[in-house]
Amino acid sequence: MHPSRWGDPARAAALPDTARGLIEMVFGLDERPALAEVSVPPPAIDTKVLDELAATLGAEHVLTDDATRRLRTRGKSTPDLLRQRAGDLTDAPDAVVRPGSHDDVMAVLAWAVAHHVAVVPFGGGTCVTGGLAARRDGFAGLVSLDLVRLKRLLDVDHTSMTATLEPGLRGPEAEALLAAEGLTLGHFPQSFEYASIGGFAATRSSGQSSAGYGRFDALVVGLRVATPSGEVSLGSAPANAAGPDLRQLFLGSEGAFGVITAVTVRVRRLPAEKVYEGWRWPSFVDGAAAMRTLAQAGLLPTVIRLSDEAETAINLARPEEIGQSEIGGQSAGGCLMITGFEGEPDAVSARRAAVTAVLSGLGGQSLGEEPGASWVKGRFDAPYLRDSLLDVGVLVETLETATFWSGLETLYAGVRSALEASLGDGAMVLCHISHVYETGCSLYFTVAQKAAADPLSQWLDAKAAACDAITEAGATITHHHAVGTDHKPWLSAEIGDVGVSVLRAVKADLDPTGVLNPGVLVP
Amino acid sequence: MHPSRWGDPARAAALPDTARGLIEMVFGLDERPALAEVSVPPPAIDTKVLDELAATLGAEHVLTDDATRRLRTRGKSTPDLLRQRAGDLTDAPDAVVRPGSHDDVMAVLAWAVAHHVAVVPFGGGTCVTGGLAARRDGFAGLVSLDLVRLKRLLDVDHTSMTATLEPGLRGPEAEALLAAEGLTLGHFPQSFEYASIGGFAATRSSGQSSAGYGRFDALVVGLRVATPSGEVSLGSAPANAAGPDLRQLFLGSEGAFGVITAVTVRVRRLPAEKVYEGWRWPSFVDGAAAMRTLAQAGLLPTVIRLSDEAETAINLARPEEIGQSEIGGQSAGGCLMITGFEGEPDAVSARRAAVTAVLSGLGGQSLGEEPGASWVKGRFDAPYLRDSLLDVGVLVETLETATFWSGLETLYAGVRSALEASLGDGAMVLCHISHVYETGCSLYFTVAQKAAADPLSQWLDAKAAACDAITEAGATITHHHAVGTDHKPWLSAEIGDVGVSVLRAVKADLDPTGVLNPGVLVP
Repeated sequence: MHPSRWGDPARAAALPDTARGLIEMVFGLDERPALAEVSVPPPAIDTKVLDELAATLGAEHVLTDDATRRLRTRGKSTPDLLRQRAGDLTDAPDAVVRPGSHDDVMAVLAWAVAHHVAVVPFGGGTCVTGGLAARRDGFAGLVSLDLVRLKRLLDVDHTSMTATLEPGLRGPEAEALLAAEGLTLGHFPQSFEYASIGGFAATRSSGQSSAGYGRFDALVVGLRVATPSGEVSLGSAPANAAGPDLRQLFLGSEGAFGVITAVTVRVRRLPAEKVYEGWRWPSFVDGAAAMRTLAQAGLLPTVIRLSDEAETAINLARPEEIGQSEIGGQSAGGCLMITGFEGEPDAVSARRAAVTAVLSGLGGQSLGEEPGASWVKGRFDAPYLRDSLLDVGVLVETLETATFWSGLETLYAGVRSALEASLGDGAMVLCHISHVYETGCSLYFTVAQKAAADPLSQWLDAKAAACDAITEAGATITHHHAVGTDHKPWLSAEIGDVGVSVLRAVKADLDPTGVLNPGVLVP
Repeated sequence: MHPSRWGDPARAAALPDTARGLIEMVFGLDERPALAEVSVPPPAIDTKVLDELAATLGAEHVLTDDATRRLRTRGKSTPDLLRQRAGDLTDAPDAVVRPGSHDDVMAVLAWAVAHHVAVVPFGGGTCVTGGLAARRDGFAGLVSLDLVRLKRLLDVDHTSMTATLEPGLRGPEAEALLAAEGLTLGHFPQSFEYASIGGFAATRSSGQSSAGYGRFDALVVGLRVATPSGEVSLGSAPANAAGPDLRQLFLGSEGAFGVITAVTVRVRRLPAEKVYEGWRWPSFVDGAAAMRTLAQAGLLPTVIRLSDEAETAINLARPEEIGQSEIGGQSAGGCLMITGFEGEPDAVSARRAAVTAVLSGLGGQSLGEEPGASWVKGRFDAPYLRDSLLDVGVLVETLETATFWSGLETLYAGVRSALEASLGDGAMVLCHISHVYETGCSLYFTVAQKAAADPLSQWLDAKAAACDAITEAGATITHHHAVGTDHKPWLSAEIGDVGVSVLRAVKADLDPTGVLNPGVLVP
């Protein structure tokens, strides 16, 4: 991946003309040339100390070159990209170390404790909450612990329908290994093409098919974790009552409690059939009520998402057609819902028929399969679009939250208002419901505004306003992107001072010298 | 409840003649007269110290009389009953205190910390793993914190389909309050009639309808907990990624981390229709495979359970007909499966038809609704039967575990062998699959043997042998009955020394002076 852009350069197409025209009309075009590249600072760790690690891992797995360190600097939030574009490489690791096994990871941790070096576990590098920007002051240095060599499918159990995966596997790599066994994990977040299995677990990721396959934390039945205090191996049964569920303490631990070295997940058979379709609703409230009805009737499709009026109008669900005010050949308006069904043909037909009956009965208008196919085509492309917009001086970023159904309207209005007030006239605030449960759902906001002279402060102010509104509404500061460093100021509002104290106690027990991702997650 | 028996004395009928005949034939009858009642020891806590608490709660809520303390002495495992029957009341609390609110609970904890008094939270008193037998040495005394006054339905949210319940509500009380709102929790463990909401949460209970409604821990979306270090309030959304899920740290915390003072749970609409039926399978292996097929196809009924050949033969699923070798008017043999469907009539019909097609296709033989109705009738009665058997000198107890599907046969054989070897010739070892997941299931064993001169040691030896076999098989020491004191010796085998260390760290943070249920859960 490029250090200041998303994904594969070959896929980073220029803005389509329709989009370019729309953007010029709304925001004006303000092409911003890339800065001359700045070098990463020289490594702060003593060469002899690194040599010690090289003796264990092999010299080829302890890297200090500019390009490698640059690529392990922060993640892929808009602030991360803006800092890179501005030549700010202050968070670059001193070295990138690449353990090849669980035992290697244990050795790196022992080395880090011995020399008081901070360790930042690195999977796909797609974090959007500052989880890769650990604090380095007080430490002898900081290394990126790159899990890229831990890419094996360790075990497949076709009877129990579980698979054990190493953390460095990226989404498509894991799916390819499972597909060879006729299986799928069914976890497809927008970052799927680059994010890793370890990252999914460490951040409680949730994918676009979560209604059908479940959130990643719900897929995990077992974990192996390397910590400075020793190894933890959990997962004696699908569920148990042997005290608190400690798996749920490592899921979402963001590299601050340990390094996840293996994850055992529930898998499903590869779906024989997949079909996606579109529905139009008169309003966001109507569409949301329909989602709630489906969830509470136990009738959720595999995929379900609902754009609000603004997002539907801008057609963000289909980046290649932004600015075209038609959906499926019909004039736009209202709110677009995408539903998807995956599985055995009979099950797909039965589920689809039941969902269709409910949605039609509630006043939904079927738009057929075209909008569904279009959504599938562009489902992983939004981050490329962000780069193109940043290039022409448009600030774009996303944030998400979740609440119970009864709090939905208040949360939606509160976060919208906060973003609009902070970003000022002309800001676009778009939203969709991205994940649905019996008791509530998540809201995923996308904002765009003409970039100010200091776009970083512009966004950080807007984000703070949104986080305050989320906290005010009693909702979660993050439904599926973890705490990192960005959400930390709001964590105690969500879990309380006693909750924070528990996190500190667990951290102190597992990582007594605090070398693991310092400053991330734990306030 | 009677201190040494289960439930309502009026329902504790004598053994049916058929059962009595069978038992005489198999074990012989050895009527054991009840011992003359022994008094509980005098309270060890200074009266002035108790008066201090009485000033806060009211004198009527700080009780030291014999009957009240006797009823709060231990739980309802067979060892608990045997100790009571033998006149052993050494675990009696010095006093029973009854807070009326969350603030009262906080006040009791502050008082306990100030005077170094051990506190045992008490809900329904149905614990079967020694969770009410806290260690008292090193403390100035021990009180039972009886949650009997915390019985309110604090909130119902019909939009989000959640309800907030106080911990002292027993199963039927909670269901009655919810039924008035047209709702149900759907949590029906065998202990349902006496066990409490707080206990369900604190022990990760699982009910007989878990396939349809979910385990209790899966129903919980929010918790309020009183701890010596302050209050914790969790539950910002159905799911979140704001770090580790701390709800899962308090679920299963067995009163050792805090006192749960409110639980917000997912609720469902009261089912308009309920139907239960029986199926016969040629073997336990065949029936288990059918369960696995249903679970992995997403086609689970609301209730599903499968007795092995031995349990089917003894007909334990229908206590009132024990010893009658017929099921539904047909000669017995093979393995009895019970399936149940609850919900809206259309949904019940559709689900039932789909399940029937799968089970028939796999070689199951439908036995119609009669075995289902019979199971429903007796579903909460087994504990009464245990009392009757103990009365005639037959030792009866149960234990349970869970594993992944691929480990099922090894676990089943291992635990059976261990129990048979320990209990000797003539022991009956019966088993059923009680809870089913996509990736595995739980096994629930019932054993009976002629009581030895020292039935307590007889059972503890057998239980230890079974726990060793469970650990050997890599399964969980408990699927739904918590750790208590009885399972503690096997906990580190399941969660590792590092896992145990984390529990200790959390305990030390929340309960620095260790007054909460000392000796329970945390090794």
